[in-house]
Amino acid sequence: MKMIQKEKIDLAHIVSLFKEISGDQYVLTDPDDLYHYERDQTLNLNFNFDILIKPASAQEISNIVQLCNQYSLPITPRGGGTGVTGGALPLEAGVVLSLERLNKIIEINKTDSYVLAESGVITADLCESVEEHGLYFPIRPTSSFSSFIGGNVAENSGSINSCKYGTTSRYVLNLEVVLPSGEIIWTGANVSKNVTGLNLTQLFVGSEGILGIVTKIVYQLLPKPKSEVMLLAGFKSLEDACHAILEIKGSSVFPSGVELISLNAIQLTTAYMEKKLPLTDPDIQAQLLISLQELSDAEMEHSLLTTSAILEKYTERDVLVAETLPEKKAIAELRVNIGNALTADHKYYRDIDACVPVSALCDYVWGVEQICMESNIEVISFGHAIDGNLHTNLVFDKKSGLVDPLILNEVLTRIYRFAISKGGVISGEHGIGFLQKEFLPLQLSNSELNLMISIKNLIDPNGIMNPGKIF
Amino acid sequence: MKMIQKEKIDLAHIVSLFKEISGDQYVLTDPDDLYHYERDQTLNLNFNFDILIKPASAQEISNIVQLCNQYSLPITPRGGGTGVTGGALPLEAGVVLSLERLNKIIEINKTDSYVLAESGVITADLCESVEEHGLYFPIRPTSSFSSFIGGNVAENSGSINSCKYGTTSRYVLNLEVVLPSGEIIWTGANVSKNVTGLNLTQLFVGSEGILGIVTKIVYQLLPKPKSEVMLLAGFKSLEDACHAILEIKGSSVFPSGVELISLNAIQLTTAYMEKKLPLTDPDIQAQLLISLQELSDAEMEHSLLTTSAILEKYTERDVLVAETLPEKKAIAELRVNIGNALTADHKYYRDIDACVPVSALCDYVWGVEQICMESNIEVISFGHAIDGNLHTNLVFDKKSGLVDPLILNEVLTRIYRFAISKGGVISGEHGIGFLQKEFLPLQLSNSELNLMISIKNLIDPNGIMNPGKIF
Repeated sequence: MKMIQKEKIDLAHIVSLFKEISGDQYVLTDPDDLYHYERDQTLNLNFNFDILIKPASAQEISNIVQLCNQYSLPITPRGGGTGVTGGALPLEAGVVLSLERLNKIIEINKTDSYVLAESGVITADLCESVEEHGLYFPIRPTSSFSSFIGGNVAENSGSINSCKYGTTSRYVLNLEVVLPSGEIIWTGANVSKNVTGLNLTQLFVGSEGILGIVTKIVYQLLPKPKSEVMLLAGFKSLEDACHAILEIKGSSVFPSGVELISLNAIQLTTAYMEKKLPLTDPDIQAQLLISLQELSDAEMEHSLLTTSAILEKYTERDVLVAETLPEKKAIAELRVNIGNALTADHKYYRDIDACVPVSALCDYVWGVEQICMESNIEVISFGHAIDGNLHTNLVFDKKSGLVDPLILNEVLTRIYRFAISKGGVISGEHGIGFLQKEFLPLQLSNSELNLMISIKNLIDPNGIMNPGKIF
Repeated sequence: MKMIQKEKIDLAHIVSLFKEISGDQYVLTDPDDLYHYERDQTLNLNFNFDILIKPASAQEISNIVQLCNQYSLPITPRGGGTGVTGGALPLEAGVVLSLERLNKIIEINKTDSYVLAESGVITADLCESVEEHGLYFPIRPTSSFSSFIGGNVAENSGSINSCKYGTTSRYVLNLEVVLPSGEIIWTGANVSKNVTGLNLTQLFVGSEGILGIVTKIVYQLLPKPKSEVMLLAGFKSLEDACHAILEIKGSSVFPSGVELISLNAIQLTTAYMEKKLPLTDPDIQAQLLISLQELSDAEMEHSLLTTSAILEKYTERDVLVAETLPEKKAIAELRVNIGNALTADHKYYRDIDACVPVSALCDYVWGVEQICMESNIEVISFGHAIDGNLHTNLVFDKKSGLVDPLILNEVLTRIYRFAISKGGVISGEHGIGFLQKEFLPLQLSNSELNLMISIKNLIDPNGIMNPGKIF
């Protein structure tokens, strides 16, 4: 990495240099143009910054990065802005580099089952384009209609399908990355096996934009499933639901999704929806919403029979099975609306996405409820149960005033410590970003943290790339 | 990373210090004791070294590494010694650190589907132990009865099953590593989703022992398949076999293994076996040996029907199906004996394990045969076809003298360049080690290589850890 001499900053001059690289209309400084880019989906946070650039290529980004290095100007790379831990917030002002113009799907290769696309492609566009070729990219987060695939790589996104399919990292074969030095590299190759040198690809996946800017992505694809069936079961206790989860995990079935919905999530959402939803009677204390995706009718029959039989062991109610789209919408309606219920009435909430071993799931849910009860905080839990990765939402009513930050911090610390004591981690899919970084030392030793920080400093010696994130 | 003052080396004194750490009987300097550790399975190479240490714990290894750092003594970590690119050869003498006493399987967790084991456990022992609990670790290389799981992690091993199951990296959740500084870290957590900081785990997987010594491994496990069926098909041309491979890859079936056996491999092995083997008549120009592993009878039926139907489109011969062990042995006999045929009559051979996109497989086989023919070198190709990862063996008869090293180098360079021109890589599963490192710049740019080297230098500033490997 070469060191470039730092010069005194003259913003108007620098803007003119950026305009030479990307063109006048793609270098913006008017506050009205910048407003949208001052925030992502992280609480109600926003940060002012100086220059918004919308480059069109890796080469433009390389030139921009070299200039930023020269003037020690912070760069915050930005995808769809759907992150919830502040990964795209320009904490230290400077430049926000939006990848929205890198939006081309370059190649869908059916024979070799991969797609090559620029990092600013919207997730849903990528998913739908490959499905038109009979292929399948399974990691589609809830934000898929606005998130960029580059953001998914930066955060190693999961999805409701992660039970069967894992997370984004499993599908990344190769990345084009602009390093903080301005060098453009490819991290891997478009082949299924590769042991040639260190695994740079997975170093960049999940690195939240602090090591460089991903400009192109090659995803390995799967054959498109032949069918999807959904099941909804209601249980008279959280324990029964958790026993069913463990038995499914040990069985010969790989559901694509197993979503647990706790009693408080059921109550909050039914109150918000103001209508009767399936399996929400007072004796139901937890729901499981299960998706099965299989490549053949034979596999679907086996999976459906096996899953139903397990669920029926732990519930006295009928298990609802949905094969048509209206049936699926009906049984998923509660799960789909939890987010809306959480934000209704100007409620403010904090989403914790700790991940614990699935054997500890029930203990974790009860433990978190106990911690929250002791501090008079309402908690709504739901999410990716078979992965041990719940969304644990602490809810504060804005009308009655925000929670005391000291109490919030103490509660968060207690919850993270509890998850870690069960063998868990602070974040299963949202990343550390800005919001969770103060808690990282609860999980990592000094040696582990120092190694990560030294890799960051090696690759970005001037600290210009997404500063203030993770560490 | 702290820098330790280098002192003048007094070998007898250092040996006494090592003995204080690991005990007299586990620190050896007698040439008879060292002989076995001077070589692995890489050609007929061997290198002398000074001290063999067999530590019993990560803490002992930490103490040893700190001493080696102090005295700038090279350390070569060693697993089962089954590598074929020289990863365990002590190129720069010094210490060989054998992990053979770190051989305990510490925990098999059925509920959370993982195994925690020390890195010196033999692969087959791990596979069999988890199968006794109804679990499955699918990446079992041919060397499984002597390779250590630490070596599999170091080389990111593949196996015949990699078509369905990927390579070792997919299963590594967490590693205990002794860094070159002597610090002991854990790289991840025993959970299925984890985005807390940089992905150190995958930085160490496939790093061939140059970044530290892996002492404990946590593998995610799968449910044990209910059954395995094998199929053998013979084709009248390589093209027909490759068309069948592509159609299987695009189908709704995931075979665990699809092994291609080229005509020259059939001829070499039938001559060696001196008996008639199935589907080896003169009109057969290529074979496919396919394994199906499924969790249920329904899935097996679907996979078997689909695969057979595809194979029958490309061959006029009957497809052989093996369900019992004797039947499987019979149809796999040729494939199993290719290695023996290669080493018979004191033949010397060089195994190239380039990996290409599967669409380029047929071109690659013909291209390599053309390159070899032009240099009068015999070539035997077989291997993991659906991964695009063949074993391409250049055979030289020792009786008639070894090949000219300049010609060999030229042929290897031409083959690697050809693989790379098709979008391939130098190594799919053997790693770069010592043997292939001069060819790495054919594939990687200066920026890519420099980034890898700078990470190595960051983590191992004194260059003591497995020196001379990869770069």
